Amino acid sequence: MKKNKQKLVAIRKSGPRKSALRKTNGTKPRLAGRVALQATVPENKSRGELRHIPWSSVEVEALNPLLGRHFVVGQNIMVARVLLKKGCLVPEHSHPNEQITYVLEGTLKFWIDGKEIVVNAGEVLTIPPDMPHRAEAVEDTVDLDIFNPPRADWINKTDAYLR
Amino acid sequence: MKKNKQKLVAIRKSGPRKSALRKTNGTKPRLAGRVALQATVPENKSRGELRHIPWSSVEVEALNPLLGRHFVVGQNIMVARVLLKKGCLVPEHSHPNEQITYVLEGTLKFWIDGKEIVVNAGEVLTIPPDMPHRAEAVEDTVDLDIFNPPRADWINKTDAYLR
Repeated sequence: MKKNKQKLVAIRKSGPRKSALRKTNGTKPRLAGRVALQATVPENKSRGELRHIPWSSVEVEALNPLLGRHFVVGQNIMVARVLLKKGCLVPEHSHPNEQITYVLEGTLKFWIDGKEIVVNAGEVLTIPPDMPHRAEAVEDTVDLDIFNPPRADWINKTDAYLR
Repeated sequence: MKKNKQKLVAIRKSGPRKSALRKTNGTKPRLAGRVALQATVPENKSRGELRHIPWSSVEVEALNPLLGRHFVVGQNIMVARVLLKKGCLVPEHSHPNEQITYVLEGTLKFWIDGKEIVVNAGEVLTIPPDMPHRAEAVEDTVDLDIFNPPRADWINKTDAYLR
């Protein structure tokens, strides 16, 4: 089987999860066309530890008026709850991280691999690494996005395509 | 940061997901004491592909009268929906796979790392590789178990501790 060939680089020594939950005050670079993101993962000792985390204790970051997100980062897994209001658009992007999306509530429409795929509550979409995709919330939606490795751009707030 | 050092071995060339959804008719070896499981992962080309999978299309395997399970396997991620009736006991075991458990409905009580941890609906438990744990469903429960790498013993039906 294939081994995970994604480049893993330690770029920060502490605290990325907590800081990732505060709202950004930084500038928001504008991006044109496809966004391709790198998988660099900050080092965080707590990521390898036993932790009990109510979602209600993890602040939801408002990325834009229609998009909120919070996440838990393990050693090699990130689990994010993504809260999308009807009409929310996720611009086309790709990332070297494998993604599995599980829609808990609502409906997401994806444009991916030349197809339109409507993912309803109770359905899963497996997205291979580096496959460009965009999405729209057909109604108010809660989805789980699961990544391997964790999305460094989400942790580091370099996910300008969402902001 | 640490790289994933788990041993990945190709042990089957096709079809493990489909076969993993049928009920086993094999013998059920008895196990005493702690169960430690190996992370060997079958090869499956579809695991690296774009797939749209309603959970309703994935047969629930009845492991015992109180425990059902179905799962989706990606390249390096497994997402399982585990259905536990009140009183269901998951015996102590450990595995080299990182685990993140998200309780969607109900309540699970864990015995882990010398502690008792009650995980309610809307809460997450991050379990590092090789940390022994057991659990009991305090009420009827639906939980998501997310693993990296995928649990080969679940795919291969060598998870006798659950059967």
